[in-house]
Formats: sequence, C-alpha cells, structure tokens
Amino acid sequence: MFTLKELQDLINNAISNEKIGREPFSLYDPINYTLESGGKRIRPALALMACNLFTDNINPAIKPALGLEIFHNFTLLHDDIMDHAGIRRGKPTVHKKWNENTAILSGDAMFIKAYEYLLDCRSPNFRDILKVFNETALEVCEGQQYDMEFETRESVSEDDYLRMIELKTSVLLAASLKIGAMIGGADNADAELLYKFGKNIGLAFQLQDDLLDVYGDINVFGKKPGGDIVANKKTLMLIKALELAANDELKTLKNLLSDKNIDSEKKITAVTEIYNKLNIKSIVEEQIKRLNADAVRFLESVSVNENKKGELIKLAEKLTNRIN
Amino acid sequence: MFTLKELQDLINNAISNEKIGREPFSLYDPINYTLESGGKRIRPALALMACNLFTDNINPAIKPALGLEIFHNFTLLHDDIMDHAGIRRGKPTVHKKWNENTAILSGDAMFIKAYEYLLDCRSPNFRDILKVFNETALEVCEGQQYDMEFETRESVSEDDYLRMIELKTSVLLAASLKIGAMIGGADNADAELLYKFGKNIGLAFQLQDDLLDVYGDINVFGKKPGGDIVANKKTLMLIKALELAANDELKTLKNLLSDKNIDSEKKITAVTEIYNKLNIKSIVEEQIKRLNADAVRFLESVSVNENKKGELIKLAEKLTNRIN
Repeated sequence: MFTLKELQDLINNAISNEKIGREPFSLYDPINYTLESGGKRIRPALALMACNLFTDNINPAIKPALGLEIFHNFTLLHDDIMDHAGIRRGKPTVHKKWNENTAILSGDAMFIKAYEYLLDCRSPNFRDILKVFNETALEVCEGQQYDMEFETRESVSEDDYLRMIELKTSVLLAASLKIGAMIGGADNADAELLYKFGKNIGLAFQLQDDLLDVYGDINVFGKKPGGDIVANKKTLMLIKALELAANDELKTLKNLLSDKNIDSEKKITAVTEIYNKLNIKSIVEEQIKRLNADAVRFLESVSVNENKKGELIKLAEKLTNRIN
Repeated sequence: MFTLKELQDLINNAISNEKIGREPFSLYDPINYTLESGGKRIRPALALMACNLFTDNINPAIKPALGLEIFHNFTLLHDDIMDHAGIRRGKPTVHKKWNENTAILSGDAMFIKAYEYLLDCRSPNFRDILKVFNETALEVCEGQQYDMEFETRESVSEDDYLRMIELKTSVLLAASLKIGAMIGGADNADAELLYKFGKNIGLAFQLQDDLLDVYGDINVFGKKPGGDIVANKKTLMLIKALELAANDELKTLKNLLSDKNIDSEKKITAVTEIYNKLNIKSIVEEQIKRLNADAVRFLESVSVNENKKGELIKLAEKLTNRIN
C-alpha cells in the first residue's frame, strides 16, 4: 500500500509537471501560484488511498485526484476574497498579491481546470463520478454561504453548526474517498461506506481545528491562537459554552461577546477561562472521539482485507488528533 | 423545423420550471433572479437549432442547452462584478442588489448548476461534448482577461481585438452549435462546420454591437450611444481610426483620447465625426459582410438538406444585421 508520504510526493510532482504555461499568463499565473503554495494534499491522498484499497494500479485515479485538489484550492482562493483574508500558507493571498478581479477570474478558470482533470477519468462509471463531484461542489458552496450567514445571525444551534462544517469541509473529504473508490472498482456499498468514513473524519477534523484555535501551540501549528474567539465565531465550543453557562458566567460570556472595545488578548484569556470552567475542551474531545469511532466502524465494514486499511487509519488519526 | 420564437418559449418555460427551490435561499435566489431576468436565449436556441438539423427529436438537447444558457448568465454575473456594472437588462446587477460576496459565491454555484445540466446529456459521445464545453469555458475566461487587460494596455492591434472578441463572445456561440449538433448525431465534419459558422456569426455580432454603440438608435436598442467612446474602449472602430487618421486628424483623435476633463457629449460628437470622415462605419460593415458570407458558406457545406437551414440563416441575419 502507498503511504501518505509517497502519495504526497507523487501529487506534488504531478502538480509541478502540470504547471499551466498558456497565455494569458496573467490569468494562469495566480493558479500556478496557488497550487504550488503547498498544503497537505489531503483530498487527493484520500482519493488515491481509497482507490488503492481496491487495486494496486492507482494511475487512473491520479488526474481526478488532482482535480479534487485544484477544486479545493479554488474554493480557498474565492473564500479568501469573501473573508478578506490577506495571508494563506504564509504567503499573500491572490487578491492581495494581484487584485480582486484577477482573484475572481483566475478562480473561475481554476474551477474549470478542476473539471478538466476530472474529465480525464476513464472509468465506465464516469458520469456517476462526475455527478458525485458536482453535487459535492454545490454543497461546498452551501457550506460557505451558511458560514458567512452565521457571522451575522443572532443564534446558531449545534445542529446548524455541524451541518455547516459538514457541507463546508466534510463532504469534499468524503467525496474524495468515494471517487477514488469508484475509480478503483469498489461496489456501491463500499464506496458509500468510505463516503461515511470521510464525512465523520471531516467533522472530527474541523472540531479539532476549532479546539486548536483555542488550545493549539503557536510553535507547533504556526497560527496564533484565539482568532475564532476574537471574531465571535460561533464554533461548537462557543455554542456549548452558551448552552452550559448559567447566571453570572453566562452574563460575563455575553458581555465579552458584545464588548466591541475589549482588548483581544484580554478577551481570549477571559473566554478561554470560561471554556475551562465548563470543561468545553473535554466535551468537544469526547465528540471527536465518537466521530472517530464511527468513522473506524464504517472503514471496518469495507469489504477488503484489514491489512490494507492501515494507511487510511493512520491518516485519519493524523487529521483528527493533532493536539497531542 | 422549430422557429426561434418556439425555441425561446420552450427555453423560457424550462427555466421557469427549473427554478431552484433549495436552501440556503440566499445562495440560490440570485441565480433564479439572474436566469429569470430575460435575455434572448440565443445560445440554447442555437444549440437546439443545430440539433434540429439532424433530428426531429430535440428533447435530449434541452438540458444541455439550458446548461449553456446558465453558463452564459454566470459569466455575466461575474463580469458585472469585475466591470462594476450596476444595471443588466434594466435591473440591478446581483452585486448591487445583494452584495459582492453573494455575487461571487452565487456565481460559483451557478457555474456548478451549468455543469449539472450538461451532465444530463445522454449521448454516447458525452465525454467529448463535456470537453468541448470545458475548453470553451476556459476560453471565455481568457477573453474576459484580455478585455480587462486591453483597458490599460497602450496599443491593441486589430488581431488582438479580433482574438479577444472571438474568445469572449464567439467561441460560446460556436460551441453551442457544435454541442447541439453532436447531441443530434452530426458527424465530426458537420459539427466542425457549425462551429465555424458560429465563430463567424459571433465575430460579426460583436462588431455589429460595437457599431451600434456609436450609431445605434437609443429608441430601438435601449442603450444610450457612445459608451465605448467615452471609455476609450479599443474597439475595431477606434483601432481602424487610429490606423487611418493622419496628421492633424490623428493628433485631434489622440488629444480626445487623452483629455480626461472633456465633456462626454462633446467627446462622442468629435470622435464620431472623425469616424465619419474616415468611413469607419463602411469599413466595419464590409468586415461584417465578409464574416457573414464566410459563415453562410460553412453552413451551406453542412450535409443536410438546404431547406432545413432556413431558421439558422434567419437567426444569423437577426444577430448580425441589427442596425437596419
């Protein structure tokens, strides 16, 4: 079985080889820039690993896997415009380095390139594979729309939040696995089990990301903690805290959220203190564990030899257990 | 054979029936708004007419034809953000009525919907059809990129301009015809002839549009003339005028272009006067005639009975002869 490292190298090599050298360069340079700026290549790796479960020949899945990576990077490019984000992977975002029009149009062209790579798929179930991709792409847009809406919405429930991160993050991980499996020759049942495995891993991954934003070590994760707290982002942690806090604690928390002049560091410290008192970290960690356990159960049911599943389990652990 | 009017009614009905009623409405309402705001439905009509050349049953081409119309409207939606356009078809543009983020994201979702409709194509040459669409979509982005670049570029040649309008406008008309023909069962040679017919019609259509911007009657075309002149848009008319003007006339024209404080009406009158002296209108009209003649020759070579081609010829005339 291919290891994560082997697949990441394979994907990075493929991306270097596929650099777009066509005019107008002003349209394509931002695409090359985005694709070469790194990232962990999780989605194509998942696709190739899922394919590898069913066949030793993963070559037919490489181009479609690249398509999934290009699509993911396209969503980041457009999201960064909408979120006014200036830095991505330690480098200026496209709309900062070039301008907003370039970011919109190069993003559109990048999306078309994603389809180009998916159209390279030679499987007999080609149309079904494209339909999975297409429906997933639409769901990712829905997730981004909810994410933006929640910023200004008064109250967001736990279910709302979980549905949002499912759409924005999980479904693409799930679809990457499903598409890889379909290309590898999996039957519908196995492809669906891998989809569910991916969906649970994706949710766990995002909840872990939320935890890291509060409890992560800047030296390990390269990101200054507390960004979500400063922005009043309605993560599961904040939703749970608002649900569990009572009396004075609830009042303090609400005051912290509505105080527009408070010093950021003070706010981070105060909100984290409330999270600590309410055991929010353990509560979310429990939820991550449950999601992981469900994920593993789905993977166990996939009808291939257990010894083939090691790499996927390792990757899932890596994605959802980043705090320790 | 179906007439243009019958096809337009069929397309408009289909669009009403396909209204997206899925959450989040904030993502899909702008798509419905854009699709319901009218337009002449030229691209899907061309696809259905081309299909109709080869078969009486145009039903299999309807969904893909809608996909072409949705794609076209998606490009308008994103172009309107980039061009800071406030009005489209007499109504506020999406980024004005909602906001820019909505316009970006609903545009992306709209593009995905376009693919959804194209994926509905049941032809055996399904993959080839999608590849034609995909390559065309990329070319349309390239056209928009050149169009934006030309605004700030010192000099634009006739070839540059013709290539830009080919990419931005013609290739989608051409691809609509080709895709319709492919679904209808045309062989490669006929599909290619229809592509070339469409490319010539598209160029003629855009040159005619440029002429109308100077010589059009506001009561007939609903648009105040002179917009291109005020914006120094490097149309074929201006390129030709800069090429043909000599001595004092050239100096006057260049002064008009560089004078940032000149009154718009004065500028329109003065530039139009130079165009008149240089016979720019006739020169461009000659070019339109040549393009039309070439287009008709391509259509004549398509191996179906001549009496089936009447509707396409009528539509081509309508598109490229709008001044009289």
